[in-house]
Amino acid sequence: MTDKVLVFSRFAKSMLTRFGERFELLETGGKPADEVFSATELAGVRALLTMGAQPLGRDTMDLLPSLGAIVCYGTGYDGVDLDAAAERNILIGNSPAANASAVADLAMTLLLGLMRRVIPADAYLRSGGWSGARPSPLLKPPRGLTGAKVGVYGMGEIGRKIAARVASFETEVAYHSRSRHDVPYRYVGSLSELVDWCDVLLIAVRAGPDTQRIIDAEMLKRLGKDGVVVNISRGSVIDQPALIAALADNTIAGAGLDVFEQEPYVPDALSEFPHVVLTPHIGGHTLDAHVAMQDCVIANLTAYFAGRPLPYPVA
Amino acid sequence: MTDKVLVFSRFAKSMLTRFGERFELLETGGKPADEVFSATELAGVRALLTMGAQPLGRDTMDLLPSLGAIVCYGTGYDGVDLDAAAERNILIGNSPAANASAVADLAMTLLLGLMRRVIPADAYLRSGGWSGARPSPLLKPPRGLTGAKVGVYGMGEIGRKIAARVASFETEVAYHSRSRHDVPYRYVGSLSELVDWCDVLLIAVRAGPDTQRIIDAEMLKRLGKDGVVVNISRGSVIDQPALIAALADNTIAGAGLDVFEQEPYVPDALSEFPHVVLTPHIGGHTLDAHVAMQDCVIANLTAYFAGRPLPYPVA
Repeated sequence: MTDKVLVFSRFAKSMLTRFGERFELLETGGKPADEVFSATELAGVRALLTMGAQPLGRDTMDLLPSLGAIVCYGTGYDGVDLDAAAERNILIGNSPAANASAVADLAMTLLLGLMRRVIPADAYLRSGGWSGARPSPLLKPPRGLTGAKVGVYGMGEIGRKIAARVASFETEVAYHSRSRHDVPYRYVGSLSELVDWCDVLLIAVRAGPDTQRIIDAEMLKRLGKDGVVVNISRGSVIDQPALIAALADNTIAGAGLDVFEQEPYVPDALSEFPHVVLTPHIGGHTLDAHVAMQDCVIANLTAYFAGRPLPYPVA
Repeated sequence: MTDKVLVFSRFAKSMLTRFGERFELLETGGKPADEVFSATELAGVRALLTMGAQPLGRDTMDLLPSLGAIVCYGTGYDGVDLDAAAERNILIGNSPAANASAVADLAMTLLLGLMRRVIPADAYLRSGGWSGARPSPLLKPPRGLTGAKVGVYGMGEIGRKIAARVASFETEVAYHSRSRHDVPYRYVGSLSELVDWCDVLLIAVRAGPDTQRIIDAEMLKRLGKDGVVVNISRGSVIDQPALIAALADNTIAGAGLDVFEQEPYVPDALSEFPHVVLTPHIGGHTLDAHVAMQDCVIANLTAYFAGRPLPYPVA
């Protein structure tokens, strides 16, 4: 049997180069596998490469009778039906921590950009507003980050790196996660308590059924009118319609978002707000992070085809 | 004699409220003092409030025979003719460090915004580029900050705060300044050597005749095609036409600028580049920083009118 890998998600060509040199790739371009390949072709597929957030359930697994490994590009694997995979003895691997620094950097980019209003400030200058001495309500002095109470929700590799970064900005950092970690930040026992306390909420929690829409209308009300939220985790963690409502009526002060409920779709209501910074899921999108994620994917696929345990299995 | 203060620069009304409660303000609105006030009125002025970057020379001092103190709002005092003031026994005060955290935060906002391309990324999403799957050359994976060699030029209060922040991003930090400081970063003996070494140049040096256009065409060439420069100090430190040329022909990779040679004028050539992030001199523009700067101004003026030494004198 050859080392056939079904490319389940739509990947940029450049991201597949290194895999193509090592494995035979069957690219779906993001379309259903059975629309692109025959049953015979799919029968030879032993491994699958996916973006972790993309739904991958029983129906797809049933098309691939030889499938033994699902390898996620990136940290997340929230789209994969873990029960269905377990029933079929399919292994699941990911790229843990490979993009953590890049994602943490983007969290800070969004937070600082939001607090210092970099989008309207840059636009004001480029459009001649400054040289023309045009008034701009957006440029009234904003609250600074110094002394802010920062709540980090989730203390995995990314949460840790975010906390280390934001603490260097003379802020007070506390966190909530399922369990207490050996980190130099105050642990808060419940998410509501963290949100009540903080001015800045940074979401770095793993997506899953237990965190689905956990940041809802009530949590946003607790965050309060001077509060801002930054999400670099998954769109599913926030109740997006509730967030839009909270931004519209100033229940909260602003949001920095790299992830959305139904990517790449972003509601117009969200993209028309001035008090948001929006990026198209580029948290892990740096050259270094891609190389590190690709290293994990290659290591997982190589080990699997050689009959060895995955070096980066999903726990 | 009453406590008359000439407001030499154009200030927003909201910035003057606290001063107006304590002193009699003569506001020029940024116009020449003798166009707005009579010689008799000016004769009673004992103190002057200015933005440090605005040129303030002998001609103005000669209009104010009772002037005994020039108080700068902010850290800089580069516009003040120090010799002329010394000849007239005029004291000079500033607001040292009051805005250092806010300025350091903005340096990081510009650096991260530049490296993670937040301006084009936000625009791409808001204009429907992402949902429409439109290709964007701006969104090819950029180089990340992890492991970058960061050179900080100037190690005053702001340089120190910038260094502490950027070091938390898993970077390697070195600095150059007139003298070695007791800081945990490698000292580099010359600016050229620092620029040769670094990928990211953060300018936090005090403006003055010795640093005028010190970042010139040759320095930008040394910074190199993967190098980026961020300036939150003064526009005078960079040879702006040379910077525009270096950005136009990719001698360097990008720039983040809060300060310009002739504010508020910014050449079109600069504001048309996609690989720059531009803000209208808002480094110290946060509520906290304004309150802290105002505290320094009030303390300086109060002490001066009471015949006590200035608590925040320019050294």
